[in-house]
Amino acid sequence: MDPDTVAKAFVDHYYSTFDSNRAALVGLYQESSMLTFEGEKLQGAQAIVAKLVGLPFPQCLHKITTTDCQPSGPGGGMIVFVSGTLQLQGEQHPLKFSQMFHLMPTPQGSFYVLNDIFRLNYA
Amino acid sequence: MDPDTVAKAFVDHYYSTFDSNRAALVGLYQESSMLTFEGEKLQGAQAIVAKLVGLPFPQCLHKITTTDCQPSGPGGGMIVFVSGTLQLQGEQHPLKFSQMFHLMPTPQGSFYVLNDIFRLNYA
Repeated sequence: MDPDTVAKAFVDHYYSTFDSNRAALVGLYQESSMLTFEGEKLQGAQAIVAKLVGLPFPQCLHKITTTDCQPSGPGGGMIVFVSGTLQLQGEQHPLKFSQMFHLMPTPQGSFYVLNDIFRLNYA
Repeated sequence: MDPDTVAKAFVDHYYSTFDSNRAALVGLYQESSMLTFEGEKLQGAQAIVAKLVGLPFPQCLHKITTTDCQPSGPGGGMIVFVSGTLQLQGEQHPLKFSQMFHLMPTPQGSFYVLNDIFRLNYA
């Protein structure tokens, strides 16, 4: 698959999992993985998913506006850069966000998330 | 220097150079460097800087809202994720943007930009 197809498949999978069963995101991270969420730094799959599961809204819906990707160097990694909106249950207006992932290949031929940075884009 | 200090110094340098003398950004890129600018893909220092110099506004001013950084793997690289506003000369309202850089170390002990992705965040 070409990188744009891989990136789109990853983005579809990531946000549909986030919106349906956040705990299942644990399989996308490893112990070396890092998340910076609105400036808060977390490391390791368990800590990252505990943060996501503990966010103070039970349901949300991501809509993706743009997905950009680039290969990230000799290690076979890939940068995925996303912008979109996040609709929280019970809130009238969606929030805009930007997020980037640095995906690294696994020996099994898949990818895991090494770097993840999320920011809301306040109006 | 710790990574946050390096990231902040890079961001200050990058945007002050962009706003004062875009052509001088050429020193931050190499032949392997990639820029995706509003979905348009460019590769190589010359092509990237030609794109930036050719943008249809003579003067602009970036203001940075947030800077996040993470180390990006065994190669000694660093991910820098920026959000902010871009004020174009003659325009009433600033534009919001998000941008990420993947910096890689040079043999001289500095960094170059391997990956650069820029998106405006439309309201």
